[in-house]
Amino acid sequence: MEGDLVPKAPLPPHVLEFLRAPNPAVIASVRPDGQPVSVATWYLLADDGRILVNMDGGRRRLRYLRDDPRVSLTVLAENNWYTHVSVQGVIDLAPDPDLSGIDRVSRHYTGDPYQVRDRERVNGWIDVRSWHGWHLQG
Amino acid sequence: MEGDLVPKAPLPPHVLEFLRAPNPAVIASVRPDGQPVSVATWYLLADDGRILVNMDGGRRRLRYLRDDPRVSLTVLAENNWYTHVSVQGVIDLAPDPDLSGIDRVSRHYTGDPYQVRDRERVNGWIDVRSWHGWHLQG
Repeated sequence: MEGDLVPKAPLPPHVLEFLRAPNPAVIASVRPDGQPVSVATWYLLADDGRILVNMDGGRRRLRYLRDDPRVSLTVLAENNWYTHVSVQGVIDLAPDPDLSGIDRVSRHYTGDPYQVRDRERVNGWIDVRSWHGWHLQG
Repeated sequence: MEGDLVPKAPLPPHVLEFLRAPNPAVIASVRPDGQPVSVATWYLLADDGRILVNMDGGRRRLRYLRDDPRVSLTVLAENNWYTHVSVQGVIDLAPDPDLSGIDRVSRHYTGDPYQVRDRERVNGWIDVRSWHGWHLQG
């Protein structure tokens, strides 16, 4: 698959395989005034096809996402970022009181639980609605 | 400089230095229906502090950006993406009839002019209004 296609979900197997790796990623959301904001993020593809991200409970972004849960996530291949996948979807926020969410994501990237234990964390479950891909072998 | 600060422009020297390298990057904009969209992109920091990106003339994103020129650009360090900078700004679109814009950006990343010569290209000049940085040495 190459080019600027905009297929709908569900994600095909070769895209799921790509997303399973602990790749660099950037998530974008929209402020109430309409300004897009983007930031690097860890993510994890769950077995049900949703994508888990996890945020510090103090982030203003959480308030914005409660107002407008639409997000876009761009995932770059670790060793060749000309291969990349972007998904658009809706994020569902849920408390992470025992830090099991951030630990799961941290282990995926680092092999270890998350080091910071004294901050409130929030899970964000992204339900993917559409995706684009470039330079993927399919 | 560490953490989730939101300083205003202008960008300080250590951030400018970081942005001068041909780093992986993701640009986010907003569709007319409010959906954020993000995609990997080349960029180039110009001498006047604006950031140049360049798009294929057929991208729907160009129409969206004419409606709402606000963008966010997240730049990752090539070899350690835990170092990253995000800038928010307003993009000014301009035709690139002789492909000098895309060639300039392509040379920055690949050392060579852009290979595709038969597609209309458009420059996007981002005027930076605010920025965040994480794990930068300052």
